[in-house]
Amino acid sequence: MLITLTTDFGTADGYVGEMKGVIASLAPGVSIVDITHEIPPQDIDAARLVVERCWARFPEGTVHIVVVDPGVGTARAPIAVRAQGRFLVGPDNGVLSAALVAPGAAAVRLPVPADASATFHGRDVFAPAAARLVRGEALEALGPLWTEPCVIRDPVPFLLPNGDVVGEVLHADRFGNAVTNITPEVPAGVVEVAGRELPLARTYADVEPGAPLALVGSSGRLEIAIRNGHAARTLGLTRGSRVVLRRHLSA
Amino acid sequence: MLITLTTDFGTADGYVGEMKGVIASLAPGVSIVDITHEIPPQDIDAARLVVERCWARFPEGTVHIVVVDPGVGTARAPIAVRAQGRFLVGPDNGVLSAALVAPGAAAVRLPVPADASATFHGRDVFAPAAARLVRGEALEALGPLWTEPCVIRDPVPFLLPNGDVVGEVLHADRFGNAVTNITPEVPAGVVEVAGRELPLARTYADVEPGAPLALVGSSGRLEIAIRNGHAARTLGLTRGSRVVLRRHLSA
Amino acid sequence: MLITLTTDFGTADGYVGEMKGVIASLAPGVSIVDITHEIPPQDIDAARLVVERCWARFPEGTVHIVVVDPGVGTARAPIAVRAQGRFLVGPDNGVLSAALVAPGAAAVRLPVPADASATFHGRDVFAPAAARLVRGEALEALGPLWTEPCVIRDPVPFLLPNGDVVGEVLHADRFGNAVTNITPEVPAGVVEVAGRELPLARTYADVEPGAPLALVGSSGRLEIAIRNGHAARTLGLTRGSRVVLRRHLSA
Repeated sequence: MLITLTTDFGTADGYVGEMKGVIASLAPGVSIVDITHEIPPQDIDAARLVVERCWARFPEGTVHIVVVDPGVGTARAPIAVRAQGRFLVGPDNGVLSAALVAPGAAAVRLPVPADASATFHGRDVFAPAAARLVRGEALEALGPLWTEPCVIRDPVPFLLPNGDVVGEVLHADRFGNAVTNITPEVPAGVVEVAGRELPLARTYADVEPGAPLALVGSSGRLEIAIRNGHAARTLGLTRGSRVVLRRHLSA
Repeated sequence: MLITLTTDFGTADGYVGEMKGVIASLAPGVSIVDITHEIPPQDIDAARLVVERCWARFPEGTVHIVVVDPGVGTARAPIAVRAQGRFLVGPDNGVLSAALVAPGAAAVRLPVPADASATFHGRDVFAPAAARLVRGEALEALGPLWTEPCVIRDPVPFLLPNGDVVGEVLHADRFGNAVTNITPEVPAGVVEVAGRELPLARTYADVEPGAPLALVGSSGRLEIAIRNGHAARTLGLTRGSRVVLRRHLSA
Repeated sequence: MLITLTTDFGTADGYVGEMKGVIASLAPGVSIVDITHEIPPQDIDAARLVVERCWARFPEGTVHIVVVDPGVGTARAPIAVRAQGRFLVGPDNGVLSAALVAPGAAAVRLPVPADASATFHGRDVFAPAAARLVRGEALEALGPLWTEPCVIRDPVPFLLPNGDVVGEVLHADRFGNAVTNITPEVPAGVVEVAGRELPLARTYADVEPGAPLALVGSSGRLEIAIRNGHAARTLGLTRGSRVVLRRHLSA
């Protein structure tokens, strides 16, 4: 039995500790695995990308709790999802998109107990639901089917007639690597970003220390990096920065 | 078997890793659960509030290790506590107050082995004691009874003759919510703080984005928040800032 | 079954989550223990010191994954090490030095699967290798012997004819304590650092609050501290700062 946690709570305030206590009490013997508690506060998109990376890597039966929930206590639904044998619980605000679009995915709306805190569904709604799922209860036993969940998709890159692809930066990671929405099937061409033209390399060490490069990262996405440096800061890249993959090389 | 950890060590220096190694060696098969390692260095009061939130949420038999210990190596006693079927070990400096005041709580003084480091009782005193408790040894087997432990209590709010309550901020959390020492039984009235009068709402979304509000938080305490904002920073609230719950509304 | 993780990934980007998913899938039932993910990006030396502190504290059979890997995807070898009944996997860049110099240590070179990401060996090389080891496969089954691994040693302190020892700062921890390469067998003398002469005390509380001191820390190394303060910042100590242990006290 495995429950993972992805939140924007940090750990210093004890909220994560409370959730772990509830989980350990309701599902004795479960293994609790931290994915992260360092999602920037209320950053739904950052959480969505972490869930996309991780959810299907875990074995079947795993229950993922995802709580980045600026709308807690409002009309937004708390939901539970089953997809490819895994389960996810969290707010219906897009953080669970990656699983919701998987073939055969199903979702239910979780009821909110009358005595639940209006500001802490992680403890009072999501942790108890995860405990029930990890103990083997059926998804359908947890609430009514929820057929129109909120799904957030990456912005779609433009394909130009000459074969070039125009995309954008989705996220800058801890190393300063800027992850884009371009997922090249064939890693060839050059990349134009921040007024510069970068080689499309295989790994960081294919360029000199301090030099910028593009590469296909570990999730299949085109990334902008600087060897031993911080590309996002140095090149001024943030979410939405324009990136062009040039396959059509001008003479 | 479950041992939790609450420290101000951070993780980057390896001290937490050493403690986990000692625990895993002395109590094979135990589950080690991180509550937090991000208590601000030597902030006994922050640790006390996290312990208060979490300790009784975990199942009976859980052992909580709490190491925020500016007086390590001095005359302050290392202690172990049993309360409501859970155990806690840590320095006798107030961090364990929430359990010490529970009905039926008992404490013992832990001996310090001759070869213990004078600066790292987490590894050499508290982790070994926790391992003995989680393996089922009786509290009384660990040391002599300790009958006058250090208990720190929240500052008590003033109740004015007109029914108003004058309290103060105890802690600002990661989201900027300022948690106070006022625990309203009936959530009604308005709240005066930082020269402003705030509505007492049910949840963040009861006000417009960017607007300040008061609400009863998930631990039953009155909190000051800003929807999608950082109340502590915006309103200048720190530990000790004055907060008044006005039940007597002037004409 | 116990696998620990030491990385410079942070947790917010999901890379650690992916590794945990791979581990949980390939070694069902394993306990995953976080040592740290907060090694400063690409700081091989900081990782080396954490591994030195922790690796042998864990029980035999533990597998430590250490991924601080600025050379990922280059000719640097991915390796697995067996030492004193424990296992370690990581890049051959010095992070595993503490185990490699242990008596009887052996290492093998791990093959890189053709479909491994060139930038994320943590997920595609090290996690799978750790899963095989924790499930009981022999080290020698994982790859060919690797007989000239990269070992980084602490700079050696100078011993002066008069008995004084000249060393340097290796690392400043979260509390601002500056850990040195001097490991006094007899804790006696005075310490000269940053133009000041400090007493060699037993613990922080042996001096007044705010006063600097030297002491022998929990790993046997001479450390420079300030009681209730931050010695590294206040005294301007960084990696390489000169520290002298004076045993020969001038008249």
